[in-house]
Amino acid sequence: MIRTVFFEENAVMLLDQSRLPEKLSYMKCSSSLQLAEAINELKVRGAPLIGVAAAFGLAMDMNNYIGPAAELGEYFRETKKLLASTRPTAVNLFWALERMDKVFQENRHEDPAGIARALITEAEKMFEEDININKAIGEYGQEIVDPGANVLTICNAGALATCGYGTALGVIRSAAGRGKLEKVWACETRPVLQGARLTVWELLQDQIPVSLITDSMAGYTMKLGHIDLVIVGADRIAANGDVANKIGTYSLAVLAHYNKIPFYVAAPLSTVDLSIATGDSIPIEERHRDEVRQIAGNYLTVPEVEVFNPAFDVTPHDLISGIITEQGIIRPPYSYGLKEAK
Amino acid sequence: MIRTVFFEENAVMLLDQSRLPEKLSYMKCSSSLQLAEAINELKVRGAPLIGVAAAFGLAMDMNNYIGPAAELGEYFRETKKLLASTRPTAVNLFWALERMDKVFQENRHEDPAGIARALITEAEKMFEEDININKAIGEYGQEIVDPGANVLTICNAGALATCGYGTALGVIRSAAGRGKLEKVWACETRPVLQGARLTVWELLQDQIPVSLITDSMAGYTMKLGHIDLVIVGADRIAANGDVANKIGTYSLAVLAHYNKIPFYVAAPLSTVDLSIATGDSIPIEERHRDEVRQIAGNYLTVPEVEVFNPAFDVTPHDLISGIITEQGIIRPPYSYGLKEAK
Repeated sequence: MIRTVFFEENAVMLLDQSRLPEKLSYMKCSSSLQLAEAINELKVRGAPLIGVAAAFGLAMDMNNYIGPAAELGEYFRETKKLLASTRPTAVNLFWALERMDKVFQENRHEDPAGIARALITEAEKMFEEDININKAIGEYGQEIVDPGANVLTICNAGALATCGYGTALGVIRSAAGRGKLEKVWACETRPVLQGARLTVWELLQDQIPVSLITDSMAGYTMKLGHIDLVIVGADRIAANGDVANKIGTYSLAVLAHYNKIPFYVAAPLSTVDLSIATGDSIPIEERHRDEVRQIAGNYLTVPEVEVFNPAFDVTPHDLISGIITEQGIIRPPYSYGLKEAK
Repeated sequence: MIRTVFFEENAVMLLDQSRLPEKLSYMKCSSSLQLAEAINELKVRGAPLIGVAAAFGLAMDMNNYIGPAAELGEYFRETKKLLASTRPTAVNLFWALERMDKVFQENRHEDPAGIARALITEAEKMFEEDININKAIGEYGQEIVDPGANVLTICNAGALATCGYGTALGVIRSAAGRGKLEKVWACETRPVLQGARLTVWELLQDQIPVSLITDSMAGYTMKLGHIDLVIVGADRIAANGDVANKIGTYSLAVLAHYNKIPFYVAAPLSTVDLSIATGDSIPIEERHRDEVRQIAGNYLTVPEVEVFNPAFDVTPHDLISGIITEQGIIRPPYSYGLKEAK
């Protein structure tokens, strides 16, 4: 299994996803500042993974701290703030940092080395937990996959977006392992092409059949009857079940609804944010317009053109057939089910 | 006004659209074989334009014919067949070739030079007619554009897709001329990016405000309330009003329907094919998988991945608010209105 993140020799090693599928390489982050840049530049991405990567970053900086013990608390808060400032939409980032904060508080009477050890242990624990959660999601989720199913997905909610196995692709992997999967249809996922670059690569590594389409082809592919099921990941789920996920997810949900195709979200419960009542309150990151205007540094369009580049959208809960979590599949009414499961 | 096609010194000159927006250049086609390749490689594209370009090609080959007069008829049929084989979906191509065939038959007792003159005159006439048709479409169509409107479009149904002024962009141009247009939202239109490359360029040339989005952003942009109206072109319209147009159009129609946004098609009556009862019978071109897998010759994905690449899709008539033609706006039931107008 390819590790997406690990701690080694006082540094956080990240699988550099911006170079896939051309190159499988790791980048070494020796400080949280470097790690924060890597998150911001999408070298590491995927809601569950950025949470765990940030946890490792926080642990690393405390481990490498050489200042006065009395100022460690302030340093911890500043580092946490830096990591939290990288991306606004995926709640797993804030969830992971809060969990690290709790461990820090519990160990605040230890010496810096002791605190660092506790934090590293916690980050490693989160890493292992994430894989187990994804396997549970896969196990519960495969029940909705009928034999011979064609499953459509967007972006990469796979091993590469997590600590291993994946959420949406975890369900697909689990269904494939039972011989129930005919094929995955991967939306290329403009502008950053996580579908074309990451999902295709990840599935072909595991010999899972996949067809690549542009995002604009998803609706027509459904209309032609090629798709039995849509499964996507999530970056944040509001208390009412509204789901923020990669831009284009909302369109898939509407198109699936119109074509009477089940539409499922697969995500760990750490993605659920009960403090947010509806999707309207989820902050949606807008990224640089060059993501749309360029590919590999070359302009696709008139360089001066204005661009709207939201990285995520919000799918209303009434378009969602179920939310697959590590505790089972949550069905409407979500406001009840999500609260129960949390 | 930029000419997309013209006849000069026994050759057909084509604005090479594959090089826009970087370079405004013309390619010289000295034979229908060269012209057929240019159509096939999308150097010239747009349903109305490929019809007129093919008509010029046919006229050119007859003009340059040096064989025995008795074999001109056979040469005409072969050339026509070659041009008709380039692309299957847009009916304007076949319509234009049939119209040229009629002129050939009417003049078959003339000498080859006389026949060629008649064909060149007919192609020039079709060119002029197309511009006038588009201006009429713009005039009728602008009535549905309310002051301050934000209009979404896909692909390029503009001056570049026609002999001038455009169909969907003709309506936009006409509305802009009356000061009613706030902004155009252009879908980039993967895989070939006609929106990013051509529509953005064409609108900015005319100082019409435009924002570029990826195709995956159209649904969310509608949901946010940014779009008042969708206007698209067409490659073939069946007798019942089903519309074949650039891949992604169907998705926009479903998303507009779900968001209660009017969805209009703008096209000349030559796009209407009464011989085809419903959209299910319209032949949909599938193009090479490298259009999806590559941009500018560079792979975006694992090179071996399987791809589905339909160039068009079919939007059912019940998702269409009206079809804007040179004879006015046709409303449901289309089976009646289209027959009346033809």
